[in-house]
Amino acid sequence: MSELESITTNRAFGGVQGVYRHQSEATGTPMTFSVFVPEHETGTTLPVLWYLSGLTCTHANVTDKGEYRRACADAGIIFIAPDTSPRGEGVADDDAYDFGQGAGFYVDATEEPWAPHFRMRSYIEDELPALIAAEFPVDMTRQGITGHSMGGHGALTIGLRNAGRFKSISAFAPIVSPLDCPWGEKALGGYLGDDDRSEWRSYDACALIADGARVPELLVDQGDADQFLAEQLKPELLRDACDAAGIDLTLRLQPGYDHSYYFVSTFMADHVRWHAQRLV
Amino acid sequence: MSELESITTNRAFGGVQGVYRHQSEATGTPMTFSVFVPEHETGTTLPVLWYLSGLTCTHANVTDKGEYRRACADAGIIFIAPDTSPRGEGVADDDAYDFGQGAGFYVDATEEPWAPHFRMRSYIEDELPALIAAEFPVDMTRQGITGHSMGGHGALTIGLRNAGRFKSISAFAPIVSPLDCPWGEKALGGYLGDDDRSEWRSYDACALIADGARVPELLVDQGDADQFLAEQLKPELLRDACDAAGIDLTLRLQPGYDHSYYFVSTFMADHVRWHAQRLV
Repeated sequence: MSELESITTNRAFGGVQGVYRHQSEATGTPMTFSVFVPEHETGTTLPVLWYLSGLTCTHANVTDKGEYRRACADAGIIFIAPDTSPRGEGVADDDAYDFGQGAGFYVDATEEPWAPHFRMRSYIEDELPALIAAEFPVDMTRQGITGHSMGGHGALTIGLRNAGRFKSISAFAPIVSPLDCPWGEKALGGYLGDDDRSEWRSYDACALIADGARVPELLVDQGDADQFLAEQLKPELLRDACDAAGIDLTLRLQPGYDHSYYFVSTFMADHVRWHAQRLV
Repeated sequence: MSELESITTNRAFGGVQGVYRHQSEATGTPMTFSVFVPEHETGTTLPVLWYLSGLTCTHANVTDKGEYRRACADAGIIFIAPDTSPRGEGVADDDAYDFGQGAGFYVDATEEPWAPHFRMRSYIEDELPALIAAEFPVDMTRQGITGHSMGGHGALTIGLRNAGRFKSISAFAPIVSPLDCPWGEKALGGYLGDDDRSEWRSYDACALIADGARVPELLVDQGDADQFLAEQLKPELLRDACDAAGIDLTLRLQPGYDHSYYFVSTFMADHVRWHAQRLV
């Protein structure tokens, strides 16, 4: 277990908002993440809500703009926000905003030059949960997961691949099918290679469902003024996949909302409460 | 009246969070500010809460991190966040974080090289309210004012100098007496000159009260782990001034809270509701 370094801790909404760093074995880099721990009795443990961020983001975007702390404090839920990729001078990168650092897509890359560090699936699924379990007052039998855009893709795919682990899965404006949108084709093609697209299917929420992954229900909010809605996000594909599989999808098209944190923060408390009903 | 340029507008919490720019006559520069307008019936007007920001801030800090939109949407209050100084290449500046651009201290400077542009008192008291009244669905008979740190100083002094205009005045960790702290001595000395400190008294909440300014009540929240508490903020001076003047000050020392937006956002909804009780 790598050593956990506390970068900042601030009292907020009765609890503590911390930012931490550790040396990741999965990515081979230092990784930074934030954790909000509500006020609680010493010795007790709290359920966990994971939040995976979107393209270009670090842990800081949702920590600054997500407006989750009041709802988490009210519900007694720990909120964890990881980074979206490995970073640093020795790490491969790309000039585009939608590939390379800040755009890890929650996959374990197999293609060069990405394979050595871009192992965000292993980091989020395995390494970081073990660190969280060891270092924070969490009840790991009560975990939920959510995320925004690329992070919504991450939440849906990680949730579907680990259905027993997560009692609740939601997303804000998720990329529901990387197999069927330009962001996904670029990222999965780059990180996994284009030779055998069947390998992409474990990184596609709709394909996972078509291939048999089952959860009882999903909650998705999507702004209808989102500039990426038609070309990249395509929530109707998730609706069709859930309909065919008998998964109870609550898909809410929110009138006038775009892709920004103004959208995410507006519906954040709803999502926290929805998870809390299933976790607390 | 200068022309109002809309920089961004985003749907948030049922309303519209906008960022706007105009050419200020007071400062002789372009000035940027943000306005949140809750959902409301066309043709109706809403009360206004002014929020003045602290050292180093622009409109963006509270707009991103202040967590005011839900409370303002619930209460039906318009929230206005101006910048903290004139900015730009032709504007005097200083390398320090607590003087020059980003540190206007809500004064009309009389000393060179600040006098030509650093006219934040006139900008906040006169020019911007006229623009807001002309361009937004505001009821200017129902205004409240608040702010953080240097902006708490701004809210208290502007509120006390214009007691008839503001029905409610609050502050987060305000500088209560620039006459009696290093930040204030540096700023007022630099902007107003050191020859006659009696000119500083209209920019000092405690001095204004001692000199006869009266309001029925004030609300101040202050973190007791604030690194600036003892040397710069000194809320006990405001308590003494209010006690002597018969002003009903609610001064809440919040245990464990520091000077950051984690503190401000934690108590923002309380302040919005407190203002709403006096405005709506």
